[in-house]
Amino acid sequence: MQYIPDTGRILDPGEINRIVEAAFADHGNGLVQMPPKVYVTLPAGDFRTMPAYLPSLAIAGVKIVNVHTENPARGLPTVMALTVILDPATGMPVAVINATKLTDLRTGAAGAVACKYLSPKKAITLGVVGTGRQAEAQVLATAEEMIIDRIRVWSRNPAHAGAFAQKLGSRFDCSAVSIEKACNAEVIVTTTPSRSPIVKSEWVHEGTHINAIGADAPGKEELDPALLRRARVFVDDYSQAVHSGEINVPIQKDLYRKDEIAGTLGEVVIGKKKRDRPDEITIFDSTGLAIQDLAIAHLAMRYGTGIDLPFP
Amino acid sequence: MQYIPDTGRILDPGEINRIVEAAFADHGNGLVQMPPKVYVTLPAGDFRTMPAYLPSLAIAGVKIVNVHTENPARGLPTVMALTVILDPATGMPVAVINATKLTDLRTGAAGAVACKYLSPKKAITLGVVGTGRQAEAQVLATAEEMIIDRIRVWSRNPAHAGAFAQKLGSRFDCSAVSIEKACNAEVIVTTTPSRSPIVKSEWVHEGTHINAIGADAPGKEELDPALLRRARVFVDDYSQAVHSGEINVPIQKDLYRKDEIAGTLGEVVIGKKKRDRPDEITIFDSTGLAIQDLAIAHLAMRYGTGIDLPFP
Repeated sequence: MQYIPDTGRILDPGEINRIVEAAFADHGNGLVQMPPKVYVTLPAGDFRTMPAYLPSLAIAGVKIVNVHTENPARGLPTVMALTVILDPATGMPVAVINATKLTDLRTGAAGAVACKYLSPKKAITLGVVGTGRQAEAQVLATAEEMIIDRIRVWSRNPAHAGAFAQKLGSRFDCSAVSIEKACNAEVIVTTTPSRSPIVKSEWVHEGTHINAIGADAPGKEELDPALLRRARVFVDDYSQAVHSGEINVPIQKDLYRKDEIAGTLGEVVIGKKKRDRPDEITIFDSTGLAIQDLAIAHLAMRYGTGIDLPFP
Repeated sequence: MQYIPDTGRILDPGEINRIVEAAFADHGNGLVQMPPKVYVTLPAGDFRTMPAYLPSLAIAGVKIVNVHTENPARGLPTVMALTVILDPATGMPVAVINATKLTDLRTGAAGAVACKYLSPKKAITLGVVGTGRQAEAQVLATAEEMIIDRIRVWSRNPAHAGAFAQKLGSRFDCSAVSIEKACNAEVIVTTTPSRSPIVKSEWVHEGTHINAIGADAPGKEELDPALLRRARVFVDDYSQAVHSGEINVPIQKDLYRKDEIAGTLGEVVIGKKKRDRPDEITIFDSTGLAIQDLAIAHLAMRYGTGIDLPFP
């Protein structure tokens, strides 16, 4: 068994996108096993347990990931993750992987894949709502699949938006703007921890694609429910999206119904579902799938340098 | 973060029993968080993911354990396990523990605790049905709580029963017998992977306590359903027992009802439920709880020698 330390910086973003896209294709074709993630509540946060089996890569395992929003004040990341990999043939643990940055990267890759298939335009203005670690991951992964003409970024804290624009300014035309202006874009990506809608429906024009990334637990939502009703909503996984995705609060409030979901990203990737018209609004509701974690773990095991551990 | 290799031989069996008993008490008092274990099927076996939070020991985490019955032919154990431990305050992974032998030991401890509370006699003849790793773990843990006058062991393979009797003969009066004779005992422990009842009701006399350990997945059963109806059945956890414990097949076949369950072992430990009469039959239906794994992990972290790993 090996321990594989952080490989976040050595993996190729394009290769991550491709392997995550292939995992979504397997999901769309019903070729994976993935029970819904399980939440355990802790005093100042929670942790989620995400088991899966991805036969096409001959990989099985479990990601364990926490969310503790008070951690930065203690000098620790809000989100930290480990993935344990088992040999599907024998069930033996073969690797334990530091999956903190991999979690950012595989979530970014899902957004990139959603853009590739659901945005009607290849060259885009990208509106970024929220400026945390995931916002940057979304931009960098999306840049592999799309031509990003400009980035318009908003944060509740203007200083954060300014810092984000400066950091990405060396590579992109990136400026801090109002949230209304950030939403005037071909593609919008939302990555905030909001618990009430912050993106108003009237700010979003026809033909926009939105990656709704932030809502990943019951009670979280970023988008005006009216926007859901104007749009076709694709989810990563039905059970998880209903439980903890962007649609979870609207469903609880009877403002959206599960049977209105247009399909899964996996179904989009395999061509079973698609955007129907250039002028409709599409939304990808991302909760994060354990198969994304297995897919990127495959790359970490291929390119990372492991530390041998005694087992059994 | 530390990796803690096998600590199975250095832990004290009495101390394991006490910490597992305390975990059951917490469970009985509703002081733990423990979603039901999640199964993922692999080509030649399965793996189970078991998350929990045990506030009294300030420990949270997830055990990951496989069952691959064809592994011994490949030189690997049927069951292998890792436990990932998180700091409940921050969600940070603090340890990865080789939990293969710990799984045997904590399961043995649950049987020992059940005997201590549910056997009407302290000095017992112990009937052992099945001779795998878990059979020995049950004997050794039970010996910490009970006076074992003699052991009567049966295996489908007589050579295995003979080898078991010889191995334990240095410490116990232990002999290989027919299954009918093994069931003529104050306490019976069953640890086989059987998928049809092997212990007949007429072999079991009034006042016997049975630890039914083997059934831990849907479709598995070891006891004649008629025996369940004569007995008071205590489970470790309602959801898990109904899904995969000794009662799972009888419930599926309408031979037993969930509302007939007498209570949990945790409720027994805290005195809320108990054996009512010396001459009734009691059964402990063990599926294995994630809090048992966290309790023994606490000891492994205290007494084991860890290998430092870079994280985050």
